[in-house]
Amino acid sequence: MAITVKHRVNFYDTDAMAVVHHANYIRWFEIGRVEYLRQIGITLNDLMADGFVFPITNIDARYHASGKFDDELLIETTANELTKAKMTFSYRILREKDGLLLVTGHSQNVFTSMATGKVVRLPEKYYVKLAAATKREKDNV
Amino acid sequence: MAITVKHRVNFYDTDAMAVVHHANYIRWFEIGRVEYLRQIGITLNDLMADGFVFPITNIDARYHASGKFDDELLIETTANELTKAKMTFSYRILREKDGLLLVTGHSQNVFTSMATGKVVRLPEKYYVKLAAATKREKDNV
Amino acid sequence: MAITVKHRVNFYDTDAMAVVHHANYIRWFEIGRVEYLRQIGITLNDLMADGFVFPITNIDARYHASGKFDDELLIETTANELTKAKMTFSYRILREKDGLLLVTGHSQNVFTSMATGKVVRLPEKYYVKLAAATKREKDNV
Amino acid sequence: MAITVKHRVNFYDTDAMAVVHHANYIRWFEIGRVEYLRQIGITLNDLMADGFVFPITNIDARYHASGKFDDELLIETTANELTKAKMTFSYRILREKDGLLLVTGHSQNVFTSMATGKVVRLPEKYYVKLAAATKREKDNV
Repeated sequence: MAITVKHRVNFYDTDAMAVVHHANYIRWFEIGRVEYLRQIGITLNDLMADGFVFPITNIDARYHASGKFDDELLIETTANELTKAKMTFSYRILREKDGLLLVTGHSQNVFTSMATGKVVRLPEKYYVKLAAATKREKDNV
Repeated sequence: MAITVKHRVNFYDTDAMAVVHHANYIRWFEIGRVEYLRQIGITLNDLMADGFVFPITNIDARYHASGKFDDELLIETTANELTKAKMTFSYRILREKDGLLLVTGHSQNVFTSMATGKVVRLPEKYYVKLAAATKREKDNV
Repeated sequence: MAITVKHRVNFYDTDAMAVVHHANYIRWFEIGRVEYLRQIGITLNDLMADGFVFPITNIDARYHASGKFDDELLIETTANELTKAKMTFSYRILREKDGLLLVTGHSQNVFTSMATGKVVRLPEKYYVKLAAATKREKDNV
Repeated sequence: MAITVKHRVNFYDTDAMAVVHHANYIRWFEIGRVEYLRQIGITLNDLMADGFVFPITNIDARYHASGKFDDELLIETTANELTKAKMTFSYRILREKDGLLLVTGHSQNVFTSMATGKVVRLPEKYYVKLAAATKREKDNV
């Protein structure tokens, strides 16, 4: 089941076409991803305190309609695939007032050691939470 | 042939992992795209004065290595496919000092009327320049 | 009385010192200012539909302590001085969990015609709302 | 004597008023400051490798005219006051083609230990370079 976060479009998020600049949605995928992890009991601060970072290796986005200043948006995040070394999420960003779909996209992160910069297998304590969440997503489909 | 722009990584482009935040490369694709168009004789300001905007409909990026503060980067932009209604570009971002490939990606834009918000066929004066550039790319491969 | 908005620090708001980049607080003053206006019945979209923009002419900020990723912040905005042509706001940004003061600052906006780019006297319908709010602030001191 | 850096306004630097968003100039002060330090032989990377950071404690900006997309700007940075613990810079941002003054401002940084987070006296090897630069500025006035 998707985790939803609300985000209101700020004036500084817009560009001279008077719409949200497209790169901002990539930032907002991060808001969704961080909240998804928080709700299954994982914070990036804990991960970093344990010596892990979670860099993005792939991102894609498809722009369906334009967000505008002051729109209230819903950022929906779903966990897709999970291995011990990487994880993918998918995203939908909608305008709250009428459900208009603005942007869809995906990301892939790899679990990485801060000490070595190498991809690592995530410790069990994190993996079990992510695996449970990913399983719930699949069961819900 | 790719058009190359230099860009130095600013401190404000970094994040708490001490690397360039991944969303910034999507912004830098825009720097490459704008410069590509300028070098073939098209400026966004002219397009907008003629009533056209050029919104992004799709973007993807693959992250190969991390950029760091003060790195001098090369943004290489190539025109790929062109129709009267849309255009795709591909990008490579490299670290100048050693040619390390940091990011690759693609974008698709559609030519859009500012008045109606609808996708439109681009006027001949712009199309011929883009078609010539796209042909040069193909001939060079 | 200050209007308060909550804002959680995103990962993309941090820099390589692992704290919020100082320019982001200037953006967050805008979040506070927009919300202040909304709560007294003025939206930037209405102002723009009536042909007015509200550009910043002066800004200052003093940084007392560093915000970090995932901190929940309170942005407090107060209207200070008002004339028919300009308005000043003051801001305090605090960490919610313990009230630690991170940043204080001020801004001055001028009411400007979109058509001419000139500073203009704000129409009565907007002025009365702003004057009432400014008076409430003074009475509360 | 001011150190000058060129910066072209990107589309993503603009907002829905079709001008540069005012917070971006605060970022561009940083571009000027980093370049100033580089030209007198100090890089932030060296400072950080030696355990120092250089956070901003105060910033102010005055907006005189609006930058637009594709404008080529000059960021002029001057060192003002220096003590062993802090330093101030002043900035002027102009439009290159006609010298129109867009923004002026100031910043104050404090030399800070990364280990303790406390303000520290800067080591002599850095101080002498900054003192020499600050003296040159004063002699030039």
